[in-house]
Amino acid sequence: MNRVNETLVSKDEIAAAFERIRPRIHRTPLLSCRTLSERIGVEIWLKAESLQKAGSFKARGAFNAITSLEARPPGVLTYSSGNHGQAVAYAARELNLPATIVMPLDAPAVKRAACEAYGAKVITAGTTSDDRKHRALEIQAAEGLYLIEPFDARTTIAGQGTLGLELLEQNPNLKSVIAPIGGGGLISGILAACRPELEVFGVEPVEACAMARSIAAGRPSDMQPGPTIADGLKPVRPGCLNYLHASQLGLQLAQVDDSSIRDAMRWLFQRARLVVEPSGAAALAALLSRQITPLGPCAVVLSGGNVDPRLMAEVLSTASLSQRT
Amino acid sequence: MNRVNETLVSKDEIAAAFERIRPRIHRTPLLSCRTLSERIGVEIWLKAESLQKAGSFKARGAFNAITSLEARPPGVLTYSSGNHGQAVAYAARELNLPATIVMPLDAPAVKRAACEAYGAKVITAGTTSDDRKHRALEIQAAEGLYLIEPFDARTTIAGQGTLGLELLEQNPNLKSVIAPIGGGGLISGILAACRPELEVFGVEPVEACAMARSIAAGRPSDMQPGPTIADGLKPVRPGCLNYLHASQLGLQLAQVDDSSIRDAMRWLFQRARLVVEPSGAAALAALLSRQITPLGPCAVVLSGGNVDPRLMAEVLSTASLSQRT
Repeated sequence: MNRVNETLVSKDEIAAAFERIRPRIHRTPLLSCRTLSERIGVEIWLKAESLQKAGSFKARGAFNAITSLEARPPGVLTYSSGNHGQAVAYAARELNLPATIVMPLDAPAVKRAACEAYGAKVITAGTTSDDRKHRALEIQAAEGLYLIEPFDARTTIAGQGTLGLELLEQNPNLKSVIAPIGGGGLISGILAACRPELEVFGVEPVEACAMARSIAAGRPSDMQPGPTIADGLKPVRPGCLNYLHASQLGLQLAQVDDSSIRDAMRWLFQRARLVVEPSGAAALAALLSRQITPLGPCAVVLSGGNVDPRLMAEVLSTASLSQRT
Repeated sequence: MNRVNETLVSKDEIAAAFERIRPRIHRTPLLSCRTLSERIGVEIWLKAESLQKAGSFKARGAFNAITSLEARPPGVLTYSSGNHGQAVAYAARELNLPATIVMPLDAPAVKRAACEAYGAKVITAGTTSDDRKHRALEIQAAEGLYLIEPFDARTTIAGQGTLGLELLEQNPNLKSVIAPIGGGGLISGILAACRPELEVFGVEPVEACAMARSIAAGRPSDMQPGPTIADGLKPVRPGCLNYLHASQLGLQLAQVDDSSIRDAMRWLFQRARLVVEPSGAAALAALLSRQITPLGPCAVVLSGGNVDPRLMAEVLSTASLSQRT
């Protein structure tokens, strides 16, 4: 094994993660969809990870990070404005550990309430990801809590990669998989679990395509995200480890606009009866808007379902699918 | 075996139905929910039948009715304003049979379009269930099509009963199950599959409680339904076979109002990330509004997910769950 592959997360690490977290997480359904398959021309399978514990794939990484520890920490800590915070709060509660979540000052009340409902302590710091990380590192130093990185860490990536292993278990005939890219934890895990057996597509918003910029630049690069409905896919830059997985394991990239994401959310609501948040609908948006042409049977990862009811009401009201699309 | 039990659908009939339809339907998830369990005080499991093929449990009965036939009919036929029509259209397409659905003149365009999208021929007749049934019987006589009864037939009941068997397979520790009552096909199947092992609760809208009226009267009795958001739970009277299952197998009854149903739909959207139609949320509504106190681990059947996006937008807009309920 050469040096590059030792840097990347291995299939063995992901298999070990799966053994640890399997009793803690849902095996989310992989749903066949004939209407969609006929429309696209290859078999399409929807991976309803929106039904995962705490509403997103993030529960996988959170459980793996904690259960990988040899000694029990006094508590866990993370910084997040979204699903990662909820997942850490949820996993900590299930494992009877205290959790501290650093959120931005302008975090929506509903997201803060979700973390608190799982029993976590919420602390606010600034408005940028760097503000939150800085505060989390201070708390870590002062209190000795275990910091669970949102995406740029081996245990997080190995945990998210269990979704890729699960896909291969659920349908050994798959040839392709499409997933969204935020910081890159999920796509890194899927690449590590599924390459080279499957072709792997990653989807970013047009307004927040830091991974595409980074691949083009040959190193992790900043991109100030523009406005997009996909609030979970707006990192300023991908993580270092995440960039390495993406650039070395043959990731294919696509981009979607907000209009395509809204169409995909409506399609999922009406045709698949699934509540999927904007970030979670990006992979399907890329397929429906023909940004991606999969070679063969293809899994579309619906990565999360935590959407504000008012936003969903607006998305459902703005257009109606009067005929099947 | 006495005469009464020969009248009722047997566990063997349901097991045989399950063998026939298993390859055609989804094994829908049975989701644990700790928040809900803590709130109610017993383990609560959500049976997400909203994710079934064609969006409701009706696919089970439709597939069983067709696959029970010894000879292949020239086509199938039913009368329905809702999920049963879609399920028959879907099942017929999968089995390469033509389907004819008799709908009311005032059927929503979206429901008609859904049947047509599955390749069915839609015919309209009057506005009442009796109008539709009369027209269906005329067509049956003229064209020799096989009529699939919506609820008052053994094969329909046995098919819906596979949901009960599936629950027992998925969690042998269950003690209770709650399901909605429309014409009574689903509740009859669940009673036949799960009694006496489980206690079985059936839920009707306050404004359309024909089963409660019938049980009180000692025979299937009419009730002109009042206005309710639960459009799938508004039969004028339960079927004869359905009444017999309900009255002889120890069904317990509860009633819910529209406000409770709306609360349950919002809860399911936000906490379980599931799209559930009003009729499909009635069982949870009865639990959340304390109309039912289950003895032990309890499955709540979310029977369908076919809801007009505009109605869901309105339900989501009218109140927000700012704190966990």
